[in-house]
Amino acid sequence: MATEQVLIIGGGALGPKVACRLKRLRPDWEVTVVEQQEEIACSICGIPYYISGDVAEIKGLMTASFQMVRSREFFENAKDVRIRTKTRAIALDRQSKQVRVRHMETGAEETLSYDKLVLATGRRPRPLDAPGCDLPGVISATTLRQAEDVKQRLSKGDVARAVIVGAGPRGLEMTAAVSDLWGVETAVVESGPQVLPDLVDLPVARMVQQEVQSRGVQVFLNESVREILTSSGEHSLEVVTSNQRLPADLVIIALGAEPRTELGLSAGLVVSPSGGLIVNQRLQTSDPAIYAGGGCIENFHLLTGKATYFFEPSLAHRQGRVIGTNLSGGCVTFPGVIGSFTLKVFDLAVAGAGLTLGAARREGLAAEAALVVQQDHAHFYPTQELIYLQLVVDRNSKRLLGAQGVSPNGDALVGRINSIAALLLHRGSIEDLANLEVAYSPPYATALDIVNTVANTAENIITGFNQSISVAEFQHLFLEEAEDDVICLDVRGAANAAPFVALFKERWLNIPQETLKHRFDEIPRDKRLILICNAGMRSYEALRQLQTRGFDNAVGLQGGVAALKKAGILNVG
Amino acid sequence: MATEQVLIIGGGALGPKVACRLKRLRPDWEVTVVEQQEEIACSICGIPYYISGDVAEIKGLMTASFQMVRSREFFENAKDVRIRTKTRAIALDRQSKQVRVRHMETGAEETLSYDKLVLATGRRPRPLDAPGCDLPGVISATTLRQAEDVKQRLSKGDVARAVIVGAGPRGLEMTAAVSDLWGVETAVVESGPQVLPDLVDLPVARMVQQEVQSRGVQVFLNESVREILTSSGEHSLEVVTSNQRLPADLVIIALGAEPRTELGLSAGLVVSPSGGLIVNQRLQTSDPAIYAGGGCIENFHLLTGKATYFFEPSLAHRQGRVIGTNLSGGCVTFPGVIGSFTLKVFDLAVAGAGLTLGAARREGLAAEAALVVQQDHAHFYPTQELIYLQLVVDRNSKRLLGAQGVSPNGDALVGRINSIAALLLHRGSIEDLANLEVAYSPPYATALDIVNTVANTAENIITGFNQSISVAEFQHLFLEEAEDDVICLDVRGAANAAPFVALFKERWLNIPQETLKHRFDEIPRDKRLILICNAGMRSYEALRQLQTRGFDNAVGLQGGVAALKKAGILNVG
Repeated sequence: MATEQVLIIGGGALGPKVACRLKRLRPDWEVTVVEQQEEIACSICGIPYYISGDVAEIKGLMTASFQMVRSREFFENAKDVRIRTKTRAIALDRQSKQVRVRHMETGAEETLSYDKLVLATGRRPRPLDAPGCDLPGVISATTLRQAEDVKQRLSKGDVARAVIVGAGPRGLEMTAAVSDLWGVETAVVESGPQVLPDLVDLPVARMVQQEVQSRGVQVFLNESVREILTSSGEHSLEVVTSNQRLPADLVIIALGAEPRTELGLSAGLVVSPSGGLIVNQRLQTSDPAIYAGGGCIENFHLLTGKATYFFEPSLAHRQGRVIGTNLSGGCVTFPGVIGSFTLKVFDLAVAGAGLTLGAARREGLAAEAALVVQQDHAHFYPTQELIYLQLVVDRNSKRLLGAQGVSPNGDALVGRINSIAALLLHRGSIEDLANLEVAYSPPYATALDIVNTVANTAENIITGFNQSISVAEFQHLFLEEAEDDVICLDVRGAANAAPFVALFKERWLNIPQETLKHRFDEIPRDKRLILICNAGMRSYEALRQLQTRGFDNAVGLQGGVAALKKAGILNVG
Repeated sequence: MATEQVLIIGGGALGPKVACRLKRLRPDWEVTVVEQQEEIACSICGIPYYISGDVAEIKGLMTASFQMVRSREFFENAKDVRIRTKTRAIALDRQSKQVRVRHMETGAEETLSYDKLVLATGRRPRPLDAPGCDLPGVISATTLRQAEDVKQRLSKGDVARAVIVGAGPRGLEMTAAVSDLWGVETAVVESGPQVLPDLVDLPVARMVQQEVQSRGVQVFLNESVREILTSSGEHSLEVVTSNQRLPADLVIIALGAEPRTELGLSAGLVVSPSGGLIVNQRLQTSDPAIYAGGGCIENFHLLTGKATYFFEPSLAHRQGRVIGTNLSGGCVTFPGVIGSFTLKVFDLAVAGAGLTLGAARREGLAAEAALVVQQDHAHFYPTQELIYLQLVVDRNSKRLLGAQGVSPNGDALVGRINSIAALLLHRGSIEDLANLEVAYSPPYATALDIVNTVANTAENIITGFNQSISVAEFQHLFLEEAEDDVICLDVRGAANAAPFVALFKERWLNIPQETLKHRFDEIPRDKRLILICNAGMRSYEALRQLQTRGFDNAVGLQGGVAALKKAGILNVG
């Protein structure tokens, strides 16, 4: 293959990865990266940890793992990649294979030729569509400069109150960043009915919301920002929502991001309705000389079989390698995404892969969900945390569709999600997960790991042995509607049940599971029963006993009292 | 289906699991578990943590996760399962479907009938074949009684020196248990050439050995125990090995375990040459009325396609559910094993799945190994540990064969191993792992996770771009043989390299990778070069540069100085 000139537009995660991979494969090719910012290959995903103080210096987000700063010189010397920073690509001419660029400081323009082009233009923060969104102190904090600005305001003590607009991943990360270390009084405003919309279903969302609220942060759902005003009062800004007025010194807009595709679009590349560049499995655009990946493309969702816009920084690294290999003359594919994610919200890890129950049902699938609460380590081992894990499955095909959960032990939770992700990629079944041979030792797992247990529970639900409701359904049915014919049957020991019985009186019956077989007579057959234990194991046992005795009026509560408490739905005793 | 009588021989992990699952599916069936010990469903795997003091009370190993003691009464009341403890099955008559049992205290015998039988007889510790193996103070510590005995000796201060015979998983767990908290001077005697034989290859074994030795424990390899003597000296015992005499107050035999199959064997069930009962995928023995699982069966290895004896407690739980379902009239299968394991050795987690490089090559596979050292979390995040992960792949088919590693962060390591295990079960390829969509966030992963990186490295090795040697090969080539024509080219910064240059002089050349492109002239072409950096990334970069310049005399060191130090091979600077 003759020496070629490869031009890469964008110096975020994808562009430099493509460049480095390609240079290792084709050392004699000329590879140039054009980036409009001053820095290159920064860890934008680390901004919340810089603002929180976990990362002390902004330089921490500009270094490679072996401490060298990822500067222009570093890429030129160590990687033999040419870098042009502060340079914006302003026009693409596919016919002549040229890109017009402009230096952001001098304004000087120049034309660069290419044999192959890579669009790594990434994404931009989705703006708030409301008056006042460009006032000083209203910021998205998605660049290092903005991050430094925010941290400076915080460290100078200029911020007593903050409003975060959007309760998606970045919104919650920024919430923790400003409120935890800096003690800023923080409110989150979310237009949807739950936090982390689209990423988790309501039961898990409630657990995350509870973690946020337990730190003194106010969470306002179903509420949108109408306007931001300057204020002459104690705080410099006022956020006007559909319900109220919130004073603030700092407003962070965290409404997600959208693909940055102007350059490709203006040159006639095919862009999807969702806005992302359309690529094939080799990550080529509609022009075979032009590749694209990362935040500016549309991906194929392996579970729905449909196009989707999903971006997560590590995708850029994997896609970058695929593009580098293909540019060099190789042929590898990137089959698609399943939507794996994780984030830290205060001291709670949240993670997931695949479809939520809601998303699966919207796709028309016969989806069911099982939620299990179980220890990360053997119950007798001294260090242990609970994992709350929901599995989503297809009732008809018995295929796995997704999993989402929370745990204070993020490493343990993410490990479980990743092992399920590997099965999702291979169209794994519930039985695959039930038999998944995960490694066991008391310090790191339970003898039957939660990934096996949650598969077993899902299978029991599908076969009809386990009839159950979620904590969200419990809240609606037992606490909100509170009709007389719905009672709880608590099968834990008397001491555990006592405060609940005291509170709910005749609506909360207590019969320990191990005594149940002698006490069927005490259980009403004319009421709807919700069986409850600590985590859902003994209530399932009790449910099977009742079903055998002809009770057809009982359901178990998924995750038991542990899930209720975690979701902040019922804090008794 | 008519009501049936199901008899289960063995009350370890498998038997009770079968019983409980079956009773939930067939509440009206009569299910009986016969167990020769006094306790049932104990967590034998927790014994090292009871001895170390991590688990304070022996009762901790006898409870369920919701704190109830797994007593006979518990199983009878909560599970409606009949339990006969202190009862041994002494004869099986398959013709009449009867088992003869004897009460261990009274000696009374009785005949129990069954419609279906389950052999859950587990395994027994492999004895030491040497005189003196039955002396007081020589113990296997595989029952709760023995564990209590050992802990009592330790807590009374009766044990100043201990010898552990066998450096397999249990041997190393017991080593940590007696030497860490109790400060016992401990020696491990292993007849093989490495610790954890068969579970890991030499590079990882050396890392584990280094962890053990760094705690002051002596490790004697290639050394077998000839005899154990009583001693009238300061210590009550003397262990005579092939090389020396080791004084001891306590000798723990940890030579693994073997299937306990007498009952089945005497009744004519088919047993494999390795000693395990042979079962089909439904876990039925050669008699369709008799099922078996757990420690007493032979398993099918999914990667070799051959029968294997592999036991790990969590298998019993998964197999128990399969047996319970099949007994009830269902039809589910247990396809086989891949050999997933983990253990904690002092503060180091060890884990693996699938085949080692050695095992794969013994199977005749064209196996290659890649070892990568990488952080568990983003390099800029304040809490992070290194993971040392080896991937074994097939050069011809590009299939994954196995993975093994160590890390101080066990949850993180086990999560990685489990995600690879899921791919191994589905005959995954290197490309599958390279693109595996693991979840990313700085507190829980790096932007390109080590599972992706190690797959990329393996692919680079197979394509020939990455030519490398392991730390074990480095030790042999550079330190032991130390021929003049082998030199190291250290591509780290001068400060990192200085102490190595000082030690090895002209055998250790330092040219930082970012300056390499100007300094090719300084690199000898007539010597064999070992390229070294911190963790293997920059040495790969340098290798590609050298290859391009026509150097065909260079290889990289897998895992770099980090791996050398972890393996205790070269502690400089």
